[in-house]
Amino acid sequence: MSVITKSNPSNLTLTKLMQDCPGRLEKVFSHYLTNTPALALKTTMSYCLENGGKRLRPLLIYATGQAFNALPENLDIPAGAVELIHTYSLIHDDLPCMDNADLRRGKPTAHQVYGDGMAVLAGDALHTLAMQIIATHPGSLSIQRRLHMVKVLSTACGPYGMAAGQAMDLTAMNDPSISGDLLMEIYRLKTSKLFAACLELGRLASPDDDEINQRALQQFGDTIGLAFQIQDDVLDMEATTESLGKPQNHDEKNHKITYPKVYGLESAKVKVNALYLEALEAIDYLGNQAQLLRELMQQMLERKG
Amino acid sequence: MSVITKSNPSNLTLTKLMQDCPGRLEKVFSHYLTNTPALALKTTMSYCLENGGKRLRPLLIYATGQAFNALPENLDIPAGAVELIHTYSLIHDDLPCMDNADLRRGKPTAHQVYGDGMAVLAGDALHTLAMQIIATHPGSLSIQRRLHMVKVLSTACGPYGMAAGQAMDLTAMNDPSISGDLLMEIYRLKTSKLFAACLELGRLASPDDDEINQRALQQFGDTIGLAFQIQDDVLDMEATTESLGKPQNHDEKNHKITYPKVYGLESAKVKVNALYLEALEAIDYLGNQAQLLRELMQQMLERKG
Repeated sequence: MSVITKSNPSNLTLTKLMQDCPGRLEKVFSHYLTNTPALALKTTMSYCLENGGKRLRPLLIYATGQAFNALPENLDIPAGAVELIHTYSLIHDDLPCMDNADLRRGKPTAHQVYGDGMAVLAGDALHTLAMQIIATHPGSLSIQRRLHMVKVLSTACGPYGMAAGQAMDLTAMNDPSISGDLLMEIYRLKTSKLFAACLELGRLASPDDDEINQRALQQFGDTIGLAFQIQDDVLDMEATTESLGKPQNHDEKNHKITYPKVYGLESAKVKVNALYLEALEAIDYLGNQAQLLRELMQQMLERKG
Repeated sequence: MSVITKSNPSNLTLTKLMQDCPGRLEKVFSHYLTNTPALALKTTMSYCLENGGKRLRPLLIYATGQAFNALPENLDIPAGAVELIHTYSLIHDDLPCMDNADLRRGKPTAHQVYGDGMAVLAGDALHTLAMQIIATHPGSLSIQRRLHMVKVLSTACGPYGMAAGQAMDLTAMNDPSISGDLLMEIYRLKTSKLFAACLELGRLASPDDDEINQRALQQFGDTIGLAFQIQDDVLDMEATTESLGKPQNHDEKNHKITYPKVYGLESAKVKVNALYLEALEAIDYLGNQAQLLRELMQQMLERKG
């Protein structure tokens, strides 16, 4: 299904953004990794960062910033920080004591290559470095906006966000009697909060001060986060190991209850499309200003892995 | 050995500080933990925080702040944050894939009670919460000072500090050919950096702007951090399991190379005293202003666990 049917004149811009994004992030990361004192730690951190995925969260930040006239160098700051947080969470999530995953994006997971202890530490170091980047990376971002970013990011990924969702995932998602409401609450915490934070961080890197924009972007981020997570579950059941870059049916093997298992595969697909439409509606009032965000969302909708 | 021989008129103040500190921290922690959405995560975090040790790092912050006329409510912010960072590092350090410790302060370690996965997540959540507290906890601290604190804390505990030291500990400290220099570098990274950060954070919570003070406090923190770490190794070899609250000779069982193993037990004790004297010298010029810091250091020197 395509939710954007009209011709898309700015496709080049999204293409360019997607081309530029990995290089911009790489520059931020190497600024901090080059002189770190512990070689084995640096090697593990680099291995995980180089095995980058779609860089979807940074792309959301750059696309939001573009909508609100942020300077690209100021967007590098939250984009780098969020990608570090996301990477740390994947490393810890893949550990044997969590999801016990051997493959990530087609390559052996960090603990498979460097051992569990070094994987824990590399995750921890990336986690801290995210905050260090917000506090110290060059750019013309004001101190006020930087501290606000620390607040937004920590609230989204700590015990009020991602970490809480991961913990509930660990305790509740093997229970076949889990309610649909609780499942959605877990998805919101473990995935949507960080998506919504990306939108807010992109806005905070810009001169925008409008509360209406803030609320609309949060609604957009929340909703695509949910859609993305349910779509992940659908892909886990439908896609091949090759297209996923990790073993297919991993949730099934971990006896995880997911949205498509509770509501059925077809209902899950309908839900994903409904959520993407809801997200579009939230930023409809922005018109052309949000075109890049719409195109990025379209890409998310069409992804196969 | 007592390095402070003169009578100590302000002993009452240190006693009071030590009495008040746990309650002040508890208030900060409960402000954030009460409404967290994931019950199992909250339980694990609380278990670790309630099993508090000497609260030495927060005490260093309060004592430094007292020397520079900081408001106690502004000191609560870095004191809470640092204790969370310290607690997270202990949880991860105790994991089977790291030091594999069953006891911490006389109680079973987090992973023993709640499982390895929940222990990883509780550590992660405490880690993030530390930054959230600096960004959001009530107080009259300026935005500038708060962001500066994020910088100081993240630099001290990430890939340029504690996490690097832990990684080097993991890779190098089982090698019998490790040089004394490398051993000291690891101690500096894994322990001293956070100690030095405590001094700087206490100063940053105050109106002080003096670069001489900054350098002196850093020197003091670095030095007592090294002393503390070597003393830890000595205690691990000499103290009883009961006084340590964790199994004695744990380093030996983990085949860890430590300062007293390289240089001998007596040399290690001499080094600890020499470092404490060096630390005293660094803040000598502060006179009575730093009396609380001296007394606290004296307590550290006399500790048995």
